[in-house]
Amino acid sequence: MPVVDVHTHMYPPAYMDLLRSRDTVPYVKSFPDHPSAGDRLIILPAEDTASTSRGRPIGKEYYDVKEKLAFMDTHDIDVSVISLANPWLDWLPPDSAAETARRVNDDVERMCAEHEGRLYAFGTLPLSASVEHVVEEIERLTTLPHMRGIVMGTSGLGSGLDDPALDPIYAALEKEKQLIFLHPHYGLPNAVYGERASDYGHVLPLALGFPLETTIAVTRMLLSGVWDRFPELNVLVAHSGGTLPFLAGRIESCIAHDAHLKKEGKITNRRSVWDILRKNVYLDAVIYADVGLKAAIDASGADRLMFGTDHPFFPPLDENAVEWESVTLNSKAVKSALGGNKEAADAIMGGNAARILRLPS
Amino acid sequence: MPVVDVHTHMYPPAYMDLLRSRDTVPYVKSFPDHPSAGDRLIILPAEDTASTSRGRPIGKEYYDVKEKLAFMDTHDIDVSVISLANPWLDWLPPDSAAETARRVNDDVERMCAEHEGRLYAFGTLPLSASVEHVVEEIERLTTLPHMRGIVMGTSGLGSGLDDPALDPIYAALEKEKQLIFLHPHYGLPNAVYGERASDYGHVLPLALGFPLETTIAVTRMLLSGVWDRFPELNVLVAHSGGTLPFLAGRIESCIAHDAHLKKEGKITNRRSVWDILRKNVYLDAVIYADVGLKAAIDASGADRLMFGTDHPFFPPLDENAVEWESVTLNSKAVKSALGGNKEAADAIMGGNAARILRLPS
Repeated sequence: MPVVDVHTHMYPPAYMDLLRSRDTVPYVKSFPDHPSAGDRLIILPAEDTASTSRGRPIGKEYYDVKEKLAFMDTHDIDVSVISLANPWLDWLPPDSAAETARRVNDDVERMCAEHEGRLYAFGTLPLSASVEHVVEEIERLTTLPHMRGIVMGTSGLGSGLDDPALDPIYAALEKEKQLIFLHPHYGLPNAVYGERASDYGHVLPLALGFPLETTIAVTRMLLSGVWDRFPELNVLVAHSGGTLPFLAGRIESCIAHDAHLKKEGKITNRRSVWDILRKNVYLDAVIYADVGLKAAIDASGADRLMFGTDHPFFPPLDENAVEWESVTLNSKAVKSALGGNKEAADAIMGGNAARILRLPS
Repeated sequence: MPVVDVHTHMYPPAYMDLLRSRDTVPYVKSFPDHPSAGDRLIILPAEDTASTSRGRPIGKEYYDVKEKLAFMDTHDIDVSVISLANPWLDWLPPDSAAETARRVNDDVERMCAEHEGRLYAFGTLPLSASVEHVVEEIERLTTLPHMRGIVMGTSGLGSGLDDPALDPIYAALEKEKQLIFLHPHYGLPNAVYGERASDYGHVLPLALGFPLETTIAVTRMLLSGVWDRFPELNVLVAHSGGTLPFLAGRIESCIAHDAHLKKEGKITNRRSVWDILRKNVYLDAVIYADVGLKAAIDASGADRLMFGTDHPFFPPLDENAVEWESVTLNSKAVKSALGGNKEAADAIMGGNAARILRLPS
């Protein structure tokens, strides 16, 4: 049974060129006068300080396909389904977005084709362009042999995934059987972390902001009836669903007890969050512990979970480490959550991805 | 084995008088010219509209102890450990806060004493007063025979529970072996729910805002070292910990991979979130589904979970309903999560609370 990593990011050269040409978030900056600073990647407004340690170090692991393959070999990963890291192409000027998206997606397709059988990809949509251009790119992506869906953030066209203006995009994705890999980026407003947040490094926005953002986004999709209108639309939700498996019961109860929704006739004629979790949602297994992973399995089923690493993020702090702890935490959680059920564990480690993403076996 | 409800709110008469005397959040408003509107309770700024349907209806179930006892009898609840509902006394003018807190706590103690054996309570602290006054009230509460800890929101003295100015309060609570019942109120900024949030009634702030607020608050306590300084401080976290059991692995991984924390020497010499969950945190079982409840049990242990109802919130929308679905969802989740283990289920339904809160058996 192959091991497949469905949550693993790469910046193709076409995207690196874009980042290096910029000086506002997102961008990559070099410091010729301070070579020890190395190149830095700044993708969150909160990281955008004036120092040479702004953002995070960015090396070849972000853009050199040899590094990805070496990482895969170290961790016994047979296939990676790569996606652009956040913030994708959300920030592109509208008039050039469609053309840039084609260039970036073609560059990703090239990388996959050059390493046949090892790399597949989720494409990226030019969401700042017109809806027509977005739909065109969805249709074009189906002609690229290594594309297996698209990666998308929670902003949509700018006002969230419950925006009815997204309907033509959802319709096209549903029609083309293209899965959305839904990934956070925007987090929560810094005020929620309080005045001492910087004492805690990046822990609060990364550990909590990301999954909470994701949970809100999926719940807004649910409440706006996206899955009532597009019952075959499939979404792979990052980080085991944010916190959706844990909160599904509370969400259902809050809907069932809401006087406004009752008055609007929206309580009875709707699909439940449990139904969505079991028919439309796939979850990656990027949750770093068996407690959360078991809840994800309970909510969506062991046949809907897919192993992931989040590479190249969360590298070991010990420079001599060979294996990445962020990876082994996730692979150990799969074994531990499934107890002795090797078949189910193998499915999560790769079998499910091979089936769901139509990978050659 | 008794059934004990540890998450159940009451406004004693002394608190109702306060709410009725106000016209800014929190307050209770009557509409003499529109008697059909009934009395309305407005506790969230987002609910504070100009209409006669602002906030939520408030009836005797909020303040009449007979209603609480009838609710308990209907649902076979032997003992309720009542607490003031949010926003407690956070908003009191500083100069009168200490005296008001004494009056409110004495009124709660009187209600409990008048129904010996059925009612115990968490007291409320005058957090807007000086720290000395707060500590005095903690010490005074230990002399009231039905008090079993204190209820607290996530604001603390105004800037969160990771505020070092809270240390004398934590020290007093630890010394007096008084548990904190940590409960959300402030939610998240409305912007995170997007421009269509009001279409969804109160679902997003109630279903997500509350547990996400709680998770951030507990994680800030953890990161600021509260439990390193006060290793015996116990916290009963509302709504099964917000989302803490599900996200504990991600929080631990983000800490272990944080370059800033490593530089500060804060990664190795610290207690893990798992350690806190198993030694300092208790969780209520207010999560409305077995998926979440199992994760809570996996994280903290079946001996640390305690049944709750959140009464009088989430009443049935069907006026003819006798049993409250919000209650039966939680009691069924306990049975389902524990499978056939009746002993563990009985412990969660009341045995744990009897032991942890020193209730007469």
